[in-house]
Amino acid sequence: MSSTVGKTITCKAAVAWEAGKDLTIETIEVAPPKAHEVRIEIYYTGVCHTDAYTLSGKDPEGAFPIVLGHEGAGIVESVECKECKFCKSGKTNLCGKIRATQGKGVMPDGTSRFKCKGKDLLHFMGTSTFSQYTVVADISVVAITKDAPMDRTCLLGCGITTGYGAAVETAKVEEGSTVAVFGAGCVGLSVVQGAVQRKAGKIIVVDLNPNKKAWADKFGATDFVNPTDLKGQTIQEKLIEMTDGGCDYTFDCTGNVGVMRQEISTRPFQLVTGRVWKGCAFGGIKGRSQLPGLVDDYMKGKLKVDEFITHRKNLSGINEAFETMKQGDCIRCVVNMRDEK
Amino acid sequence: MSSTVGKTITCKAAVAWEAGKDLTIETIEVAPPKAHEVRIEIYYTGVCHTDAYTLSGKDPEGAFPIVLGHEGAGIVESVECKECKFCKSGKTNLCGKIRATQGKGVMPDGTSRFKCKGKDLLHFMGTSTFSQYTVVADISVVAITKDAPMDRTCLLGCGITTGYGAAVETAKVEEGSTVAVFGAGCVGLSVVQGAVQRKAGKIIVVDLNPNKKAWADKFGATDFVNPTDLKGQTIQEKLIEMTDGGCDYTFDCTGNVGVMRQEISTRPFQLVTGRVWKGCAFGGIKGRSQLPGLVDDYMKGKLKVDEFITHRKNLSGINEAFETMKQGDCIRCVVNMRDEK
Repeated sequence: MSSTVGKTITCKAAVAWEAGKDLTIETIEVAPPKAHEVRIEIYYTGVCHTDAYTLSGKDPEGAFPIVLGHEGAGIVESVECKECKFCKSGKTNLCGKIRATQGKGVMPDGTSRFKCKGKDLLHFMGTSTFSQYTVVADISVVAITKDAPMDRTCLLGCGITTGYGAAVETAKVEEGSTVAVFGAGCVGLSVVQGAVQRKAGKIIVVDLNPNKKAWADKFGATDFVNPTDLKGQTIQEKLIEMTDGGCDYTFDCTGNVGVMRQEISTRPFQLVTGRVWKGCAFGGIKGRSQLPGLVDDYMKGKLKVDEFITHRKNLSGINEAFETMKQGDCIRCVVNMRDEK
Repeated sequence: MSSTVGKTITCKAAVAWEAGKDLTIETIEVAPPKAHEVRIEIYYTGVCHTDAYTLSGKDPEGAFPIVLGHEGAGIVESVECKECKFCKSGKTNLCGKIRATQGKGVMPDGTSRFKCKGKDLLHFMGTSTFSQYTVVADISVVAITKDAPMDRTCLLGCGITTGYGAAVETAKVEEGSTVAVFGAGCVGLSVVQGAVQRKAGKIIVVDLNPNKKAWADKFGATDFVNPTDLKGQTIQEKLIEMTDGGCDYTFDCTGNVGVMRQEISTRPFQLVTGRVWKGCAFGGIKGRSQLPGLVDDYMKGKLKVDEFITHRKNLSGINEAFETMKQGDCIRCVVNMRDEK
């Protein structure tokens, strides 16, 4: 096979042409990377609720047509950055350098590297892992140990790291503390894993789906509460009763903006009495410097990843991955991008 | 003078009979302390906006008739507590043990120690420093060095500690960081003092009153912005421009609930990008263990207190203290409680 360096690559991708429609498997053209960009061959990708959210048309920043996907693993090369104040800061894991163009679905030079049927496709979250080849900014990639299995480590690209990091990095849960986790999906169960690692004394999982009790148990939760089972008691009252006055840490992993709005629109006095509201993206984990360590932890058996995978699909079945995710019996579905090669 | 131990004391106090009315200087009866209570002779008291807020009738937890005042200094004795999980916790400076009764304006046994004209008066914030004698729970008092001047250290009972603690204890402002302080009253200027102590790189005071620029300068602020002077630019845009993208720490010291509600009712996505919203009462300072250290810092010249005192009144002039506070040219007014003895 002749070198493809500097040439446009033709490959398969799952294209989102418009909001609310299934993805279409298309042959697309991926332009060669420009300065400070890297083209990556994607081997595996997870399918996350954020992909479904943007595809639904509800995301105010969503734009089409686009190659979705952001939880991927492939062959990449490492480049150092740490240039701007965000990277140097201990306060955030976010990158200010490429935020403006990334939010618009284009590369830092303002253009796209994807083309299909003569039309430009947008990039998604600076990654677009629903294509066999993608182009990303050099500062968006990180090298991990070569023997890590990409069909599992791709999940560290979003869901697992988000929940685990929220517990150990952002909230810094302490030994013996009481923790409540709302929503036992991939993110919520990862919070449980993080709380177990930090030796929390009580880890209460709250979910409306009774099947999630077994999942909570599997990851080390000490208690499970289904709000629909409570008789004449609110979930707040139940948690106060279970924890002598209230939890030290509570995590909202429902992804329900209505619930979040309700929580943060309360009386300012709730803050004056010393509460802290924190949020994070990617768990507060710095992808460039901290992700390789999480992969190493997985390789040493210290971090659960395989346990999250309930479904597997090929690229041609990627829309079924979205379907299973909506049904709630799916924690994570991993898509093999190579089957169509 | 014969001992008053075990006897009811008759003394002067500024009584709030009902919302929206001036305080009335009355002769009241202060019952002897019951078990785990301490009676204190109040020498000086500060007058704080919280007193004015409750007196106005806007405080949903306000009740009358009551002896207001909570920024006091007097002759007390020290008692150890550290019994419950709140005291042992590193997460809060609040006391859960007496909260329920304190919030209702009574002593832990559910009754009041104040009587005037045959009626019970309520206690305020567990202190009621607007009386020459008051009774508080033993766990609400702390011994400070005897040579500390009470006509100044009373201000460490609320305003100065609240702002200073917010900067150094709750936010833990870091060297070189950028800080914005909204509102240059006693609390806001104390935040400035804390930020200076933590060696913040830029300290921007925001206030609608142009006279506050001199006060901001006096306490070590590096910049002053009056939002009404900005032409076609919001205060947010101005701060972003001054700090290369935004402040590391912002403090709301306006006491304006409308502003606070607006700030915390924003898009949940503001949290997801890593922001933190914190609140605190008394700056997060533990009164029983940390306040004596602040008094010592003042005595060594490391903490400004005298500089906050713009007005002085006697008990008979306490309503004038409320008036000057409303006019905005007052940082703190200290009331001498002894003049009526």
